Amino acid sequence: SRLRDHGVEVGVLRPGTLNTITDVPGVKVGQFTLNQGYDIRTGITAILPHSGNIFQEKVPAAIYVGNGFGKLAGYTQVKELGNLETPIILTNTLSVPTAVNAVIGYTLNQPENENVRSINAVVGETNDGYLNDIRGRHITEEHVLKAIENASTGPVSEGSVGAGTGTICFGFKGGIGTSSRVLPKQSGGYTVGVLVQTNFGGVLQVAGVEVGKKLGHYSDSFKYSPDGSCMMVVLTDAPLDSRNLERLAKRAMLGLSHTGGIASNGSGDYVIAVSTAEACRIPYESENPIQNVPTLRNEAMTPLFLATIEATEEAILNSLFAGETMIGRDGHKIEALPKEKVLEMLREAGKLDR
Amino acid sequence: SRLRDHGVEVGVLRPGTLNTITDVPGVKVGQFTLNQGYDIRTGITAILPHSGNIFQEKVPAAIYVGNGFGKLAGYTQVKELGNLETPIILTNTLSVPTAVNAVIGYTLNQPENENVRSINAVVGETNDGYLNDIRGRHITEEHVLKAIENASTGPVSEGSVGAGTGTICFGFKGGIGTSSRVLPKQSGGYTVGVLVQTNFGGVLQVAGVEVGKKLGHYSDSFKYSPDGSCMMVVLTDAPLDSRNLERLAKRAMLGLSHTGGIASNGSGDYVIAVSTAEACRIPYESENPIQNVPTLRNEAMTPLFLATIEATEEAILNSLFAGETMIGRDGHKIEALPKEKVLEMLREAGKLDR
Amino acid sequence: SRLRDHGVEVGVLRPGTLNTITDVPGVKVGQFTLNQGYDIRTGITAILPHSGNIFQEKVPAAIYVGNGFGKLAGYTQVKELGNLETPIILTNTLSVPTAVNAVIGYTLNQPENENVRSINAVVGETNDGYLNDIRGRHITEEHVLKAIENASTGPVSEGSVGAGTGTICFGFKGGIGTSSRVLPKQSGGYTVGVLVQTNFGGVLQVAGVEVGKKLGHYSDSFKYSPDGSCMMVVLTDAPLDSRNLERLAKRAMLGLSHTGGIASNGSGDYVIAVSTAEACRIPYESENPIQNVPTLRNEAMTPLFLATIEATEEAILNSLFAGETMIGRDGHKIEALPKEKVLEMLREAGKLDR
Amino acid sequence: SRLRDHGVEVGVLRPGTLNTITDVPGVKVGQFTLNQGYDIRTGITAILPHSGNIFQEKVPAAIYVGNGFGKLAGYTQVKELGNLETPIILTNTLSVPTAVNAVIGYTLNQPENENVRSINAVVGETNDGYLNDIRGRHITEEHVLKAIENASTGPVSEGSVGAGTGTICFGFKGGIGTSSRVLPKQSGGYTVGVLVQTNFGGVLQVAGVEVGKKLGHYSDSFKYSPDGSCMMVVLTDAPLDSRNLERLAKRAMLGLSHTGGIASNGSGDYVIAVSTAEACRIPYESENPIQNVPTLRNEAMTPLFLATIEATEEAILNSLFAGETMIGRDGHKIEALPKEKVLEMLREAGKLDR
Repeated sequence: SRLRDHGVEVGVLRPGTLNTITDVPGVKVGQFTLNQGYDIRTGITAILPHSGNIFQEKVPAAIYVGNGFGKLAGYTQVKELGNLETPIILTNTLSVPTAVNAVIGYTLNQPENENVRSINAVVGETNDGYLNDIRGRHITEEHVLKAIENASTGPVSEGSVGAGTGTICFGFKGGIGTSSRVLPKQSGGYTVGVLVQTNFGGVLQVAGVEVGKKLGHYSDSFKYSPDGSCMMVVLTDAPLDSRNLERLAKRAMLGLSHTGGIASNGSGDYVIAVSTAEACRIPYESENPIQNVPTLRNEAMTPLFLATIEATEEAILNSLFAGETMIGRDGHKIEALPKEKVLEMLREAGKLDR
Repeated sequence: SRLRDHGVEVGVLRPGTLNTITDVPGVKVGQFTLNQGYDIRTGITAILPHSGNIFQEKVPAAIYVGNGFGKLAGYTQVKELGNLETPIILTNTLSVPTAVNAVIGYTLNQPENENVRSINAVVGETNDGYLNDIRGRHITEEHVLKAIENASTGPVSEGSVGAGTGTICFGFKGGIGTSSRVLPKQSGGYTVGVLVQTNFGGVLQVAGVEVGKKLGHYSDSFKYSPDGSCMMVVLTDAPLDSRNLERLAKRAMLGLSHTGGIASNGSGDYVIAVSTAEACRIPYESENPIQNVPTLRNEAMTPLFLATIEATEEAILNSLFAGETMIGRDGHKIEALPKEKVLEMLREAGKLDR
Repeated sequence: SRLRDHGVEVGVLRPGTLNTITDVPGVKVGQFTLNQGYDIRTGITAILPHSGNIFQEKVPAAIYVGNGFGKLAGYTQVKELGNLETPIILTNTLSVPTAVNAVIGYTLNQPENENVRSINAVVGETNDGYLNDIRGRHITEEHVLKAIENASTGPVSEGSVGAGTGTICFGFKGGIGTSSRVLPKQSGGYTVGVLVQTNFGGVLQVAGVEVGKKLGHYSDSFKYSPDGSCMMVVLTDAPLDSRNLERLAKRAMLGLSHTGGIASNGSGDYVIAVSTAEACRIPYESENPIQNVPTLRNEAMTPLFLATIEATEEAILNSLFAGETMIGRDGHKIEALPKEKVLEMLREAGKLDR
Repeated sequence: SRLRDHGVEVGVLRPGTLNTITDVPGVKVGQFTLNQGYDIRTGITAILPHSGNIFQEKVPAAIYVGNGFGKLAGYTQVKELGNLETPIILTNTLSVPTAVNAVIGYTLNQPENENVRSINAVVGETNDGYLNDIRGRHITEEHVLKAIENASTGPVSEGSVGAGTGTICFGFKGGIGTSSRVLPKQSGGYTVGVLVQTNFGGVLQVAGVEVGKKLGHYSDSFKYSPDGSCMMVVLTDAPLDSRNLERLAKRAMLGLSHTGGIASNGSGDYVIAVSTAEACRIPYESENPIQNVPTLRNEAMTPLFLATIEATEEAILNSLFAGETMIGRDGHKIEALPKEKVLEMLREAGKLDR
């Protein structure tokens, strides 16, 4: 069960049909989970902004660095050129290069790409090294390709799957989470979808209830795992240029903050934002040096900012609600969020009776 | 009465003695309020990181731009050189240049500064034009100098004073607010003090309770005043270089988020962070081209991040709790936060009985 | 006589008709020179990207900070919103706030702007304090308004005029300079115009000839005036968004480098880039939240980069060629570039016989 | 023979003993060249800032992005934390992930690193796909490790070696180049060493002489290979923090400009700057949260800026002077710079008779 199934509404905007990133039309998610033996707890999550050849039909994009203690690949080119040309891949810290290699191979081998010699793969990561034998680098290029192949529209698995298999959030089992918001017609009717890979710390708040404080479940030293991190992917069908996508991406950090996240020193917090609007696609090659691009005006961004904040908060909470207790490397054990206790706290705070 | 007087604790760290920015040793705040006739509702708030000649003894500093729809003066030089050489002044949007002129005059006229020919004044602003006749530009250089003269350690007035005289926050009367946190000894024992000038929108949350939603007191169009903004000043006695001060400044936005702020398109949200540590001061001139600087290591930043988030949240809430209903330009009226109702909501959510 | 009158061609692209920033259609420049008595050597240069109400019809813009030891006003809002809403004003360091005040007044008083309450003036500066009594702050708002009124298309005065009245470049008399380039038809036929206010140091090179080295005219300590600076304004009629304008702006620094400039610690080097293309104008208010914007593709930028580099180099050299020996504050004397000697060096290097 | 062997002095500062990056004490360079069969023309260049365990003794660092059309790995963490924890590796565009994997393996396997689970490899690249079968991805992890093993102080091979094996510069054979400058005692006596991997375009200038223009050897369309790039590595023993290292890095682009480089749209131009000063090393773990760091004051940076500009210009020219005509993929042939012709031009311009 997800948080919203219990009647808890995060924010004031309504979610899309599935309350997932795939509510944004055309978006696909694929995952590959590598949960083997005593100490392999890792995987891949792939997000495809559209079903075509992404290299040939690039999408406007931006990446915002909330806290740069991380190894995400592809940042500087997205910043410079304002676009994304590959699927977005999430995995563990030490498997980023393997995933980049896989995406390069995937792109080189696509029809029409026979003469391509330069590819900017965007691969994010968090460090699952507490539960996973990360030094073993068990992810292979085939695993990455399988995640891409698995990609589909529709429901998205949450919790300890794909890139979230071995992650930890606020000291509980984290993982993959997703959520969405749909703007009212008069605000454009756009959909914003968010997918997160949660592996960070702070003092947990659920819908404003101070769960971490009440449970005494936060670091006494006010420090947190140096290897924490949160990857946030924000997709929207609103027609945005890269400048406004960067502004949108920045707001995801405000959503993370709602859950009690603090972007601790060791947390690599990155937000990748993409517009899937068809009219904004950027062909790899074009005879016309000028492209007419529909662009949302600055002042129309505010409702999208709110949508991003709400969907990010709920996606993170969904990752926690989907988590299950896991034992991994060296017998390390991470408990799932004690959902019953949390729901009881929410009830006491008057959050369930809506 | 401030929020904490009602038994509401924001976060898990304890505040300093006064729970103000002046808990940071040596810091002074001075204000000048211009509340005259039917339509003048504005003023000046000055923050002095130390009592010496700031131009001659510069302080490490950074400014983080949460959302740059604003006219703050002094950004690029602070970014390039990593230091601050004047008092920090807050005022209204159209009075920034007058305040800069005043700070230049103030600095030129200080003893020892007879040969100074280049001064980087840092002046922040929010737009109080709904209650104040901002087009009249009623602030004079004398007002600014008076605020600086007024500066003292000790208690800080909150609410509709100084630069907060005519500001609006979440549709209620905003203004100046302040708060502080002291780290435990084993985390260094440092103090973080925050002062805010609140003039922004979103969906108000007080200590996690969805006040804005319950009161239905937020924008139906999910847009907010194009002239909103929030200035946040973060001072600490921890020995930080400008890189880590920028990281610290960034966290203030997470505190703003806790109150329901969304950094709307029109909101100019800026954070100015300064280290007051004496050993980190940067003399204007020095015979020795090398300075030995005590510098906190990256991994010791996390508790300071948490302190900044908590103090910023509480400073914003304090600005609302200190606000009183005001009538200004064209008879515009802004109500104070209905404190009794809010406290009742907090009681129902179990936030008062601690 | 300008450099090119002597047969010296900088670069490989051809200049526009006048070889000035006003070769960009619709662009106007106005100047006000304040050269009075023994020690007042300063002024104002105003650049208007079009003749309409700039606040109501904003232009896409970007500012690149080559070296941020400077007090330019307006940076953060241009960065955030990607546009410019006022004339660009250049003046001396300590007169920036006066110029901002003037631009605010100018904008408030324009027809259609009766309800405007927020204005982001862009004002750049260099420090003319060696020749000018800069501490006296002799610029008034009227001077600024006069420069704006004076603005016209057509020829532009160079050398010790306007904001260049008291500036120094490579130890010689600097000032205002301008130049332009026109792309070949097959590269779009666009015009790039540059205007500079030169007040910086390094080791002078003229068209590749090491003039500074040959004359022994550079700092023995390899340091340079802490108050140097260079303002560069780059206008083009190519339809560019703010991201590509920032990339364009960045290239002006490469042009500055060609003259031997080194962006010394104390030099505030800023580039303001604007697209004047009519179809890219951004109305202050619009019923349609979506604007269809013609946008040049990334790969079409390269010829514009080259044009910017060449025009910036030549504009700087033009400021030197137009300079005349000046005596100012405290009897300080700055010699004009010894043009005859320089031309002789160019002749010896084979640069004149083309 | 290198440029300087012909009596051509670039700039006004003197080079170090070898005029190489290894003039900076303790710095090692290692290369591995993969020049096989008809179409494999690539390799690895490794730069080690010191001989110890770099992960355990990190060095202050910064990366400046001149133009971000590139795939350099490691940018965001260096930016956030201000340090470098691995050797710097240069290679071809599509081999970046393989090199990252090699560096991860290298670091995991070093003594003392048994518990390391997070590594930020810095790997730069340019695209050698015109001469090299880049799609074949012929670089292996072993090649990378061999380059690291090969690292030594002393002379550095230039031209078509290591990562420069298949690169092209101004339409001629480019490659690896290096140079250095030593400041006079009164400016601190520091050494600045630069190593470049040249693969970019523009209008070639050699010591100010317009070689590209005279030879008519530049693009008629004023466009340049979309896959060009230049990697610049700047090391110094001056005690600099990451803020001033970023400023230093920025100046390398000014040196590139001196050679006629224009940072074309498709050129990924990155500068990696590192301080090798022992007292500035950052231990991975420390009992003391505060480190006393000697830090050069801002105003002492200027001579270092000049040194960086000069050494970068000369390093690029050295890469061209060391280039030899090469035939590669699909019979593509790239000529060496016609050195005799160029020297003749330099002689005519009076550049040789010093």
